[in-house]
Amino acid sequence: MSKVTPTLPKGTRDFGPDELRKRNYIFGIIRNVFEKYGFQPLETPVMENLSTLQGKYGEEGDKLLFRILNSGDFLKDVSQENLNYRQSSKVAHQISEKGLRYDLTIPFARYVVQHQHEITFPFKRYQIQPVWRADRPQKGRYREFYQCDADVIGSDSLLNEVELILIYDEVFRKLGLDVTIKINNRKVLRGIAELLGVARFNDFVIAIDKIDKIGYEEVAKFLEENKIVGEKRASVNFDKGNLSYYRDFFYDKDLTVLISEFKAYDNYEGKEGTEELKFIIDKATSIGKLSSSILFDTYLAPLPLIFDQKLARGLDYYTGTIFEVKANNVQMGSIGGGGRYDNLTGVFGLPGVSGVGISFGVERIYDVMEELKLFDNIDLQSNTTRALFINFGGEAETKAFQYLQQLRANDIPAEIYPSSEKMKKQIGYADKKEIPYAIFVGDEELKSGLVQVKDLKSGEQQFYSIEDVIELLSKKLS
Amino acid sequence: MSKVTPTLPKGTRDFGPDELRKRNYIFGIIRNVFEKYGFQPLETPVMENLSTLQGKYGEEGDKLLFRILNSGDFLKDVSQENLNYRQSSKVAHQISEKGLRYDLTIPFARYVVQHQHEITFPFKRYQIQPVWRADRPQKGRYREFYQCDADVIGSDSLLNEVELILIYDEVFRKLGLDVTIKINNRKVLRGIAELLGVARFNDFVIAIDKIDKIGYEEVAKFLEENKIVGEKRASVNFDKGNLSYYRDFFYDKDLTVLISEFKAYDNYEGKEGTEELKFIIDKATSIGKLSSSILFDTYLAPLPLIFDQKLARGLDYYTGTIFEVKANNVQMGSIGGGGRYDNLTGVFGLPGVSGVGISFGVERIYDVMEELKLFDNIDLQSNTTRALFINFGGEAETKAFQYLQQLRANDIPAEIYPSSEKMKKQIGYADKKEIPYAIFVGDEELKSGLVQVKDLKSGEQQFYSIEDVIELLSKKLS
Repeated sequence: MSKVTPTLPKGTRDFGPDELRKRNYIFGIIRNVFEKYGFQPLETPVMENLSTLQGKYGEEGDKLLFRILNSGDFLKDVSQENLNYRQSSKVAHQISEKGLRYDLTIPFARYVVQHQHEITFPFKRYQIQPVWRADRPQKGRYREFYQCDADVIGSDSLLNEVELILIYDEVFRKLGLDVTIKINNRKVLRGIAELLGVARFNDFVIAIDKIDKIGYEEVAKFLEENKIVGEKRASVNFDKGNLSYYRDFFYDKDLTVLISEFKAYDNYEGKEGTEELKFIIDKATSIGKLSSSILFDTYLAPLPLIFDQKLARGLDYYTGTIFEVKANNVQMGSIGGGGRYDNLTGVFGLPGVSGVGISFGVERIYDVMEELKLFDNIDLQSNTTRALFINFGGEAETKAFQYLQQLRANDIPAEIYPSSEKMKKQIGYADKKEIPYAIFVGDEELKSGLVQVKDLKSGEQQFYSIEDVIELLSKKLS
Repeated sequence: MSKVTPTLPKGTRDFGPDELRKRNYIFGIIRNVFEKYGFQPLETPVMENLSTLQGKYGEEGDKLLFRILNSGDFLKDVSQENLNYRQSSKVAHQISEKGLRYDLTIPFARYVVQHQHEITFPFKRYQIQPVWRADRPQKGRYREFYQCDADVIGSDSLLNEVELILIYDEVFRKLGLDVTIKINNRKVLRGIAELLGVARFNDFVIAIDKIDKIGYEEVAKFLEENKIVGEKRASVNFDKGNLSYYRDFFYDKDLTVLISEFKAYDNYEGKEGTEELKFIIDKATSIGKLSSSILFDTYLAPLPLIFDQKLARGLDYYTGTIFEVKANNVQMGSIGGGGRYDNLTGVFGLPGVSGVGISFGVERIYDVMEELKLFDNIDLQSNTTRALFINFGGEAETKAFQYLQQLRANDIPAEIYPSSEKMKKQIGYADKKEIPYAIFVGDEELKSGLVQVKDLKSGEQQFYSIEDVIELLSKKLS
């Protein structure tokens, strides 16, 4: 074994105790709300067959897959030509058949298809696991990061959308984050696209997605120049020959106006999309006000839900509602997103199963909470050591150990310093681990049957019976 | 996108809701006990640099590492000769620099060395994460499986061993498993090896490890034939020329006898090992009796700890105490193991840091608990849906949804069926998801302001105010 200075692979991180406690706090709140809404946990393997993953994330996505080298004599069957010409990407297919999971959605679709006969539909599952992408690492972008998804599959009821919005609202309120939940519907975009005579819908969606960043004028120019907006533009009076006339479609019109315009143009998709939106927004708003007033003791707090016809979302499997969540008052991309898909499992041979899901961007949520110092107000220490027994060795050690076990039997996390080192060292250990109390069981205490408890913050010291210590620390815990 | 019948890579598994709830129950109990004993969580990335992993698990282990193919044009710098001769193992080193974690111990050692200046020693960490081995899959052996470790590093006090034994005892009692915790010390084996004139200690340890399986006579033959027991056997009257004379060393002698024999032979390692064992066993037994009587209300239940000089453990980094846990009355390999190591971090440039750790074999613990039907007595449903609101559509749906949110606000997991399907379908959904109550809010209930609650097991139906429903279901939860 040679000595090497250890490092981590680029874009990966260790999570030490302090960071993990904060992360687990976020995961815990999300998990708890998911379960309250009837979602059940699922975990899939880190490795999937590449046949499952490839072709699902676009060409760019395929390049970002981490591939696992086949075991054993993997070069045996590689064609000599590919080797001679060092055709890395062709050889890659011949020497690796497994890859690391790229998201949680495709493994979920794979699971649903594999287990379709055991699953009770509508199937409400949540999944909180890491995923891997061979992206160039940069601030806030990692090669290993967690995703956190909830989906309902096998039901096209819009009540599911309503519930997912309520989940977003409850989770972010519980985390103390002020957010805006944006909602749109792909059918609205399809309707607009039809009226504009859009030739290539996917490119249109990707362009629209950029309005917030680069402004409508730039997007319109891009649409024209790249002939994404085609020649057979709708001939209704909607057609004024200049794309900038339609900017009001993306900026000024509210949902009610859009509904009547789509009706006027007899645009089926647009009509359906806007009506779905109206149903969801009305229901979510009325129930949402009620929920938050019960839950958070606020008088009919409004749901922070807004319709945004500029919302497009990148993924091409969305077919209906789309969501996105932004944190207010912070510079940060979206911290949540999702939508309805009508054919996620089709690629695995199970067509026509509608589903809708949301995702929490937990890595960004963590960063936002750090930036806003929201963790400062949260007690993350309840599962950490509450008291350290100072070790004086010999008989005193044995007695201290006995007391220690009594604390632990009462579910109070506690420790004894493992050896009778100098007092300064033992107290230093407690200080660094932020243990609030030190307990002394020395000669004097052995005689009296009491223990001395020192509050390490205030420095106060007092004698207690062990029963009183248990009561004191149990109270502090709850 | 082509249609493919989805499958999972060999040796990997999905965990659906039912299985996950059981697994999380086990993890939860272990995590809770770890934290009560002052251990802090750590998580490391799934990928490590191969320079960190290689050479740490023996030649066999290196072969079982899952390697990640480098991204991009990975063949660029591979030597033509290696390609021409299809030297898979040489090429592997040139085209992959990352691998999947093989265990949690080496990443932990890597973490400690990297963070040595921030860590407060003694550092008590626990880690519950999956690991990967390209082993041939078979019953009970997977390519992806969880490990669950607790280690104390930076303290050579034997109190740590005592605490780890108490952790084993508490966890297995809480899981309802009847176990035997075996303990030995590598120094005892070294002492015996010295007296026997063992030439190659590691081979000796591996052979001794097989006594339980193939019997002492076979092992003795193997030791002789392979010249593992050397010629310069100790000349004391211990030497009787025939290995079978020493079988009593492994079978009949108790710790007190061994201590005096090692003293008589003036065998330093043997003496130290047996004295350490005596200290640990005495302390653990006296404290352990006390702990279990407080915790489990049993009258001084004995700690199921036995000294077993045949216990050897495979890993060569152990230098002191070694542990192994077996489930009683079940055919199954060890469900836990661990030991003390004096130089785990040396390989990463930090020598002389002593540590001791234990591991829970959670996959096997799960299998044993299934076999003994121990999950039958455990309430795993407390976080699952307690009530399903039957959906009658329209105004009734809105009212039901409002009631639903009141239940959820009181932390009662509940659902509404997302659409007003036929009653049979809705009740069928509740049955399959094992939801105990159905709640009806129909026309009649809208008028009366009461809801009808049906116990889906007994079939009993009764009218309640929503406040009474909340009380009823909250009670059932706690």
